[in-house]
Amino acid sequence: MAGLELVSSSRCFDGEVRKYRHASSATGCAMTFNIFLPDCAIAGTEKVPVLLFLSGLTCTEDNMVTKGGALPHLSRERIALVAPDTSPRGAGVAGEDADWELGTGASFYVDATQEPWKANYQMTSYVQSELQQLVADNFSVNASRISIFGHSMGGHGALVLALRNPGHYQSVSAFAPICHPSTTDWGKKQFHAYLGPDTETWAAYDATELAGRYDGPPLHILVDQGGDDQFYASKQLQPGDFAAAAANNKLHIQLTMRIPPGYDHSYWFVQSFMEDHISFHAKRLRP
Amino acid sequence: MAGLELVSSSRCFDGEVRKYRHASSATGCAMTFNIFLPDCAIAGTEKVPVLLFLSGLTCTEDNMVTKGGALPHLSRERIALVAPDTSPRGAGVAGEDADWELGTGASFYVDATQEPWKANYQMTSYVQSELQQLVADNFSVNASRISIFGHSMGGHGALVLALRNPGHYQSVSAFAPICHPSTTDWGKKQFHAYLGPDTETWAAYDATELAGRYDGPPLHILVDQGGDDQFYASKQLQPGDFAAAAANNKLHIQLTMRIPPGYDHSYWFVQSFMEDHISFHAKRLRP
Repeated sequence: MAGLELVSSSRCFDGEVRKYRHASSATGCAMTFNIFLPDCAIAGTEKVPVLLFLSGLTCTEDNMVTKGGALPHLSRERIALVAPDTSPRGAGVAGEDADWELGTGASFYVDATQEPWKANYQMTSYVQSELQQLVADNFSVNASRISIFGHSMGGHGALVLALRNPGHYQSVSAFAPICHPSTTDWGKKQFHAYLGPDTETWAAYDATELAGRYDGPPLHILVDQGGDDQFYASKQLQPGDFAAAAANNKLHIQLTMRIPPGYDHSYWFVQSFMEDHISFHAKRLRP
Repeated sequence: MAGLELVSSSRCFDGEVRKYRHASSATGCAMTFNIFLPDCAIAGTEKVPVLLFLSGLTCTEDNMVTKGGALPHLSRERIALVAPDTSPRGAGVAGEDADWELGTGASFYVDATQEPWKANYQMTSYVQSELQQLVADNFSVNASRISIFGHSMGGHGALVLALRNPGHYQSVSAFAPICHPSTTDWGKKQFHAYLGPDTETWAAYDATELAGRYDGPPLHILVDQGGDDQFYASKQLQPGDFAAAAANNKLHIQLTMRIPPGYDHSYWFVQSFMEDHISFHAKRLRP
């Protein structure tokens, strides 16, 4: 596999979890990702569908595979999981490690246009193009059957990528996504840094704004939001705004939103509803 | 709950994962454990069975609940999980943090008789008596329906506690247990330190030795051993010795041992077979 360095591999649930490192042209630095491959994809006897998972602030490519509880369900459904890192790492951008909400681990999955970020923080291009091409070129997957999901900042990333690329993903889901970042502290701070002061440019990365104007083929969306999530309570996530925008665009967006009481923002919450999300995607990936 | 300090609590799989800290009379220091309680035990509408999980070298009370993948199955079966720490921690014993195979994180679940360990490293007493009494006194559990399992050093601990206490546990299982510690580097080093040079005292903590002489009620045992486990290959685990001892004592021990190929020693392996272990115990805990 040209350009892909295997960092580790472990057998798990009749498949393998592998970590790869590669030089990224989009981010200008080494990037790592985890991939789960069911045995049929390892053997090459089937080109399996792909689920792309984007993690949240401070996370890495490891959170999902370690704590998400997805692997038994992916194994059963014969779906590959791809979990990239949450930002460039060690790119040498001034100040990237100084603040947990900005820079390393906090890319917000945008293509930055501002200094000092724009040379490396090209995460939309990385996730949407480079990473997916790399996976299509190197593994036994059907790259035309792909869905996307994520948690918190990664839920924002998943919703935004699906809404920006009509027809590309079969389905999208999110756990406690940042839904309206142009209007919340999580979002305004990062968009200002990465995209500059012109708030017109922010709308292209705001799920609520994008949901209002989306006119592609019907997009199936599942969102779960823990009812006792501290960031929901402090209005950093604003799923209500997203639900309203989706409701006003019912011809194009089919949203199921659930707010199970008692659950917080953590992977204790994420894993509790993981099977539902895998089943939701599997129905669209293997219709 | 007198003496129990709630450190954290998160809703998960229609129940809660809670971490508690308490002063232990057995170990003479503060101990922490995690407990998963299904909603019926939280509400007190049912006294649920208990599964006790012992972790391996370098682990804490967190590995199982974070990476074990047990919680959806425990929730479905309405079984409480109790996962203690792997040793006293911060007890101030000279040298306890100097070696990852001895002291902190490496108790081997024995009651030490030697200096400097004996004042604190009383993990058999802690797990078998103090912790179980604490759980019985403070939670809606049926303390007479209890099974035990563990991983690696914790698999050793689970097998030894079940074999030392005939009739106490409904069932016992282990992932990649250290099976014959009197004869392997993992075991000889620790038994010498904790129990002294008299190898006669080691047999009381050696699953293979105990299996040969066990004469209690029929004990149901499930052991899974990854076929590509580096510690299996280096003969630190010796499941074959344990299987032979069990085969010679078929009237009293009903062992199922599996060696799935390709799996290593990690929680990637443990989680892959967790559902089988929970089902195995559930059948005996809810006959």
